[in-house]
Amino acid sequence: MLVVMSSYATEEEIAQVVTAIEREGYVARVIKGGERTAIGILQNRGSVDPAPFLLLPGVKETIPVSKPYKLVSRELELTDTIVQVGDVRIGGENFVIIAGPCAVESETQALTIARTVKDQGACIFRGGAYKPRTSPYSFQGLGEEGLKILAKVREETGLSVVTEALDHEQCDLVEEYTDIIQIGARNMQNFSLLNRAGKARKPILLKRGMSATIQEWLMAAEYIMAKGNSNVILCERGVRTFADHSRNTLDLSAIPVVKQESHLPIIVDPSHACGRRDQVIPMSRASTAAGAHGLMVEVHNEPAKALSDGQQALFPAQFTEMINEILPILTEEQRTKLLQGRRS
Amino acid sequence: MLVVMSSYATEEEIAQVVTAIEREGYVARVIKGGERTAIGILQNRGSVDPAPFLLLPGVKETIPVSKPYKLVSRELELTDTIVQVGDVRIGGENFVIIAGPCAVESETQALTIARTVKDQGACIFRGGAYKPRTSPYSFQGLGEEGLKILAKVREETGLSVVTEALDHEQCDLVEEYTDIIQIGARNMQNFSLLNRAGKARKPILLKRGMSATIQEWLMAAEYIMAKGNSNVILCERGVRTFADHSRNTLDLSAIPVVKQESHLPIIVDPSHACGRRDQVIPMSRASTAAGAHGLMVEVHNEPAKALSDGQQALFPAQFTEMINEILPILTEEQRTKLLQGRRS
Amino acid sequence: MLVVMSSYATEEEIAQVVTAIEREGYVARVIKGGERTAIGILQNRGSVDPAPFLLLPGVKETIPVSKPYKLVSRELELTDTIVQVGDVRIGGENFVIIAGPCAVESETQALTIARTVKDQGACIFRGGAYKPRTSPYSFQGLGEEGLKILAKVREETGLSVVTEALDHEQCDLVEEYTDIIQIGARNMQNFSLLNRAGKARKPILLKRGMSATIQEWLMAAEYIMAKGNSNVILCERGVRTFADHSRNTLDLSAIPVVKQESHLPIIVDPSHACGRRDQVIPMSRASTAAGAHGLMVEVHNEPAKALSDGQQALFPAQFTEMINEILPILTEEQRTKLLQGRRS
Amino acid sequence: MLVVMSSYATEEEIAQVVTAIEREGYVARVIKGGERTAIGILQNRGSVDPAPFLLLPGVKETIPVSKPYKLVSRELELTDTIVQVGDVRIGGENFVIIAGPCAVESETQALTIARTVKDQGACIFRGGAYKPRTSPYSFQGLGEEGLKILAKVREETGLSVVTEALDHEQCDLVEEYTDIIQIGARNMQNFSLLNRAGKARKPILLKRGMSATIQEWLMAAEYIMAKGNSNVILCERGVRTFADHSRNTLDLSAIPVVKQESHLPIIVDPSHACGRRDQVIPMSRASTAAGAHGLMVEVHNEPAKALSDGQQALFPAQFTEMINEILPILTEEQRTKLLQGRRS
Repeated sequence: MLVVMSSYATEEEIAQVVTAIEREGYVARVIKGGERTAIGILQNRGSVDPAPFLLLPGVKETIPVSKPYKLVSRELELTDTIVQVGDVRIGGENFVIIAGPCAVESETQALTIARTVKDQGACIFRGGAYKPRTSPYSFQGLGEEGLKILAKVREETGLSVVTEALDHEQCDLVEEYTDIIQIGARNMQNFSLLNRAGKARKPILLKRGMSATIQEWLMAAEYIMAKGNSNVILCERGVRTFADHSRNTLDLSAIPVVKQESHLPIIVDPSHACGRRDQVIPMSRASTAAGAHGLMVEVHNEPAKALSDGQQALFPAQFTEMINEILPILTEEQRTKLLQGRRS
Repeated sequence: MLVVMSSYATEEEIAQVVTAIEREGYVARVIKGGERTAIGILQNRGSVDPAPFLLLPGVKETIPVSKPYKLVSRELELTDTIVQVGDVRIGGENFVIIAGPCAVESETQALTIARTVKDQGACIFRGGAYKPRTSPYSFQGLGEEGLKILAKVREETGLSVVTEALDHEQCDLVEEYTDIIQIGARNMQNFSLLNRAGKARKPILLKRGMSATIQEWLMAAEYIMAKGNSNVILCERGVRTFADHSRNTLDLSAIPVVKQESHLPIIVDPSHACGRRDQVIPMSRASTAAGAHGLMVEVHNEPAKALSDGQQALFPAQFTEMINEILPILTEEQRTKLLQGRRS
Repeated sequence: MLVVMSSYATEEEIAQVVTAIEREGYVARVIKGGERTAIGILQNRGSVDPAPFLLLPGVKETIPVSKPYKLVSRELELTDTIVQVGDVRIGGENFVIIAGPCAVESETQALTIARTVKDQGACIFRGGAYKPRTSPYSFQGLGEEGLKILAKVREETGLSVVTEALDHEQCDLVEEYTDIIQIGARNMQNFSLLNRAGKARKPILLKRGMSATIQEWLMAAEYIMAKGNSNVILCERGVRTFADHSRNTLDLSAIPVVKQESHLPIIVDPSHACGRRDQVIPMSRASTAAGAHGLMVEVHNEPAKALSDGQQALFPAQFTEMINEILPILTEEQRTKLLQGRRS
Repeated sequence: MLVVMSSYATEEEIAQVVTAIEREGYVARVIKGGERTAIGILQNRGSVDPAPFLLLPGVKETIPVSKPYKLVSRELELTDTIVQVGDVRIGGENFVIIAGPCAVESETQALTIARTVKDQGACIFRGGAYKPRTSPYSFQGLGEEGLKILAKVREETGLSVVTEALDHEQCDLVEEYTDIIQIGARNMQNFSLLNRAGKARKPILLKRGMSATIQEWLMAAEYIMAKGNSNVILCERGVRTFADHSRNTLDLSAIPVVKQESHLPIIVDPSHACGRRDQVIPMSRASTAAGAHGLMVEVHNEPAKALSDGQQALFPAQFTEMINEILPILTEEQRTKLLQGRRS
């Protein structure tokens, strides 16, 4: 339940409501909006009786939040969350391009690709240092060496960087070296890692699990927010179905649904969804048109030699084509900003 | 296998190849392209030895067609099929809007909606006369009376009309009264009906089955084409998955894959895919951006009173909004044509 | 809604209730049980007010039937339906083995296999005369010739026979020549064919659609029953999922659910579910243990030469093994009966 | 690839082969079978040339292992792995019953249920101390207190105990207090945790991921084995599909496939698969008949009051019924053993 305070409510009145909530054995969470303050009642089992709270001074109304998620809920926070990463803003009216190779393979490779994608308008660089691989015998990433290369890429190009962490220990390092910590699809319900992410001082990019409902995905984000980290970026990357013409089935209706249910930004990773280069550009256009706040795509200078997932990486020229094809779909303002980034 | 004739090949030489194919116990199908003629070898089990055909006069080359579909295959027909319905062209560089209620309920209802959607740029009217309903106790459509109303709509508005046929008998009537015969998702592998559709003198709109792979879907189209009807329009309408936030999961990567594999036009029905009004507009934008040749959407003047599937029908104002939102995604030419239709 | 008559109710009182129901614009369906008669109210939209019926003489109570299915519902008919085919009883405490090739290929082939499976305890012979094939170029079955062979098999062996009909016309012939008419998975929601099946004088074997929920499946059976044919046998044959180690995923929990929801018999076809010979025996055991009323399996004397689906057909020796392995899972009575059939 | 040594090969010859493998940059893994020793070549990318190894003294043959899994593969180890837990043997011809509540709630609750299930033939007690919950606000388990209760249960009843660990830290504690460490479905591809499990001195019960293919599941087991822990028990617990009559769809054909592909034991958890009490008994029978090496079921003395997943827990009387119903499906030896456990 949400206790909404009058716009004239004093800090003292707010504190009184918090005390009253805690007295009932619940957890109170104060959410200060632009105009008014609301107080979420958390950790209640079953429904909460609003009566005692409605009588307190400064309380305007109470809103039952029937959905199991609260902090991620649009009902709790009407305005879009904007995740700020350096001077890049993710969410709201902004559109962001994240690009880079599946895995960081060497400093030369990373820097070459980073400069290429920056020239075309990308403002965040992606690249795996720790790779979740189905086989224990596959290339598992360069580890900390990869993180150092990512830090070098940021230094040299000014791009922010994002990479995945697979456990607590990696999370410590990723938090230190990079700007956004990615939690992959396979770890979407790794609740221990979600709790750790909730304590991170960096934004979290949370991919949707391979067979997660939207509710489960939002609940995973709720884990992160409940621990205190409000900077969560959701990333749709396709779900597993019987269809065999693409690696996963990109579920674009997730975009309007997430935007309606939550205030968090949602981007799309068409590369992992499709798994095949030739579907990436049309699906990038479709994701943009469906209302995504951005795209995360794989680009490699030599896909044929990529140590991981080469068949889905765009060639630099295809990346340029992709950007050109999404330009008409963007808003005037998004387009201007993207083109500015391109020139700079 | 495909026997490709030289561009100088005579009719006699073509006939000779046909005879040679038939002599081997296969079926030959002559496909006249713009520049050259090709002859498909059908009903072979296992691979065909190209040697005897390569020796015949006028033969340029033979192309093994490894895919199980032949007539629908891009390998057999490089140029996009354009299905002509009245003065509406479906496929290639054209973009078509098909709109109307789920079910035809009355002449007034049909005419009201038809005029509304025509004013906004739709050029084909949809409306069910025979409804495939999960329950035998649900409204099953007006039947032939509904077909008569559809004919009246065409007469009054000039719009072409499309409606579904569930069996041979209905197919006879639908063929008589309307311009396009729809085969629904539940009948995608009703092979008897597909064979009947292959003999129809009207184009077929073939919806993808709820759990059909793209190959199965193209094979269903192959049934129709193998019986002689080349005017097949494919329609993606979502597939069944575990996801519960939309009625079906719209599989938009089907669009680039179908366009690569086949020369047939492919449109999208976001209404049945989503099942909820508020997802239809974003998914219409996404479908357009993914490269669909058109959209088929449900519009009702009073969705709350609709006898069937009211919760997914757009209100007239929402339909206008949908059209406005896809305009920037269309090509210059598509946009001009759509706006012309709107004004006229 | 269901109007339940007192066990002393006269025929006249029953007739009065029927009249009262029809006067309200509904359809009444009299269901005579062992002890008492109930009258189903069909074709009502929305809920029916029980008050006027409760006042009629002979009426004991009214039961609201919240599920969309009525005639197939356990609530309407407490005792298991037994479908009688010759002297074979399907449903209740009985266990039936249906076996034979995927497709009837010749009289010799059919008779050879029929004698083999009969010797092992099968009491119904299966074999396709009309084959629903993904490709129009694949073997489509022998047609009426196949039906004549099936009739011959029955004559020679005494086995009842079942085969699939794909449309009305075939249904007429299948009804004439065989004992059970099969409606295949791809036609589970071919409502026109279901209506035709409802008028047939032979029992219907209704396979579950590839992505049908149990409710949709029961509603398909409801179509058949609503037209007057109460002899419906349900057949689980696997559903389509992401899993790639079997052709379909056999959904055995459907068995307890169907048995709870409906009075109709339910059997399992492990051959089509698995698609691979080596999974058929374990899944036959599992289906039996889950409570199925019988099995339908494919057996071929020369699977390698089968014109259709050979890789899933059991060799005769494997069929014997299968029977031996399910024997301990059967009830004493089922086992005795099966062994008797074997010896005879 | 697998280098198979002659049965007369000396330790020195084996060591030579290992050296030769390592000289090529691969990892060698010596697998001592009953009759002969084989040496697996790991971490090769692409195929390995067998020629240099075939020339070494003591080498009998080389077997290419085309499957991506090696250590879990039946090709590498022909005889069934038997996981020994106290005096309980899991795998091969043995059948094991693991039972207990979803979550450990108190010492009284745990002991009560443990005694009940032991009396009926269970030989391992299950109970969650750390619960992976979709919501951060749901009961997350008693933590270390729960582990102490599990240790107490073992002490008092003699039953071995199994519980889930969600991360490295919990794994340390679970390893200390219990007999088997469970890795849950949501963590099946938590590769960091799999690596940790590979170093554990206790057996691992590895549940199948909600949308994992069998190959991915076996590869997850390969992670554990590649780190040195060969005691892996696989547990099928249903996969996510469109079907809505059970929580997940139990995929029983996984049993014959896993048994063919791997030497590891496979058990089934029908409770989490079904999610509803009334499906658990039939699915227990079906799992047993399909060839599972055991069952893991939830039993609660007061399901209505269970803090977690109460609707799927069997009542004690139902657990007895379940055992009684699987008895006829077991082999003579399994039955005898189970009944002995019951009486003792």
